[in-house]
Amino acid sequence: MDISESQIIAEFANVFIRPDSRVLVGIGDDAAVVTTGHRTVITTDMAVEGVHFKREWSSAFDIGRKITAANLADIYAMGALPDHLVVSVALTGNESLEWIKSLAIGIDQEARKCDATVVGGDVVRGNVVTISIAALGHVGTPVLRSGAQVGDEIFLSSLPGWSTAGFHILTNTIDPTSLANAAHAHKALAQFRAPTLDYAVSREFRFAHALCDVSDGLLTQAPQIANASGVKLLFQRSLIEATTDFAELAELAAELEADPWDWVGAGGEDHVMLGTGKKLPGIRVGEVISGEGVEIAGLERKPRGFTHFR
Amino acid sequence: MDISESQIIAEFANVFIRPDSRVLVGIGDDAAVVTTGHRTVITTDMAVEGVHFKREWSSAFDIGRKITAANLADIYAMGALPDHLVVSVALTGNESLEWIKSLAIGIDQEARKCDATVVGGDVVRGNVVTISIAALGHVGTPVLRSGAQVGDEIFLSSLPGWSTAGFHILTNTIDPTSLANAAHAHKALAQFRAPTLDYAVSREFRFAHALCDVSDGLLTQAPQIANASGVKLLFQRSLIEATTDFAELAELAAELEADPWDWVGAGGEDHVMLGTGKKLPGIRVGEVISGEGVEIAGLERKPRGFTHFR
Repeated sequence: MDISESQIIAEFANVFIRPDSRVLVGIGDDAAVVTTGHRTVITTDMAVEGVHFKREWSSAFDIGRKITAANLADIYAMGALPDHLVVSVALTGNESLEWIKSLAIGIDQEARKCDATVVGGDVVRGNVVTISIAALGHVGTPVLRSGAQVGDEIFLSSLPGWSTAGFHILTNTIDPTSLANAAHAHKALAQFRAPTLDYAVSREFRFAHALCDVSDGLLTQAPQIANASGVKLLFQRSLIEATTDFAELAELAAELEADPWDWVGAGGEDHVMLGTGKKLPGIRVGEVISGEGVEIAGLERKPRGFTHFR
Repeated sequence: MDISESQIIAEFANVFIRPDSRVLVGIGDDAAVVTTGHRTVITTDMAVEGVHFKREWSSAFDIGRKITAANLADIYAMGALPDHLVVSVALTGNESLEWIKSLAIGIDQEARKCDATVVGGDVVRGNVVTISIAALGHVGTPVLRSGAQVGDEIFLSSLPGWSTAGFHILTNTIDPTSLANAAHAHKALAQFRAPTLDYAVSREFRFAHALCDVSDGLLTQAPQIANASGVKLLFQRSLIEATTDFAELAELAAELEADPWDWVGAGGEDHVMLGTGKKLPGIRVGEVISGEGVEIAGLERKPRGFTHFR
């Protein structure tokens, strides 16, 4: 590496270190020491260049934001709030210091949205850029996938599908500005590069009975809640299609000769919250009934599962 | 991947899940929930195929043990005890289910030595095997690199250098059985593939005034304690050379026409504890005096820093 490991660590430390009364020992020793509550939530997510992101497609800033958002969403998906992150990064040696700094800033800015702090990490050499984050949070009563009850309503913090729409545009090398629906296309691209999550809304899902985030697609995730809870999740096509997001995705899909239901039903990486319960925020999309599995009432064919980027 | 992600996760879960009263929510939801003390120690380490390990050189079991040991050592190096791990793994798709299972067993067995449990993870696709672990532990008073005091003695839990000796044998494609010092060579190879740490001894280093683990070589790590503490670390060549480990490394080095001091001084990845204080276990190797930097009294030339594997 032209840039030394210690130089990179110094850049990272410069971005990440900030006053935080929860951090007793931060970056610079063998490990970090943080104050925690009685119950700590922990999750980890890894992103590999060429599999989860491409440097031609996404800025370092967005790559940093995206992997961080994926981790933070997992914390919220337990009904918890994030506190601390540790970040492992493999770099190839052909990244500029500017690129590396932007990656750190992307991670840091996404973390700051949730008042979370990066407290440690590891920098190594690799043949592709690989980022692994572990996030810690605190929780009172964790909200599991197994808590759905017959009579619950089903809510999404917002509609998934935008990220996969963006992926569709990139894989088909479509010029977004050439489209009649250029604004929608740009929104989809932005969401693919790094989802913009409403963490305040995600936080309100801690009152759900059952909860997960949609990282692998609604029709992959919903059955996990149904199976874990021993219930059936009955979505209403009409409720989903009545949303502004669906209307916009449908307009974009029509222009690209795609099916918006493939994006909404099978698209992952939006990291929206999927919860069952009463009076949750976001979009009400169906109800929990007795039975098993998942059905979208009014939709004849099952949305295609994408051969997804990951 | 021939083997599906869900199959791999099921294999991992089968290896990792065990009764643990500290784990409220384990593998299978969006994140794990564990009970923690007031002060949580957290660290992370990443290992990349071709950089930190080669599948031709090390079994999956040893690869798993090695990256886990690196993380656990960082927890002990804060004067803390490990509790939980999360594991992210990128797999290429050409690993057998047997190989993947052995990797998990290696991680698990190393963790169990310290009564730590794997509570979550992520499995993704990559072009080389990449493993990132984050370890959590608990601590009363963390032992920092900055706590060394003039008058302290310097201790090593055991002598570093064996791992680098093993690396020397592998990079020079030496047949260990052909050597007069075959037993030493096999010990070095084993230590390179996965260091065998004495965690009971490591634990006693929580009574040190200053502490770190030797992951990057004694002469890289010792100056970090000296600088952080504003003192000088004066090692005694005679104390180090009086150890059985040094005698064995010297015998092996003589046969391989290498210098044992290069291995002992610059060799990393043994993850032994380096502490200053009074009456610590292991080997007493010097003392803390006023001044700055590090000196090995009696040694004329500075050990060469290896162009190290990582």
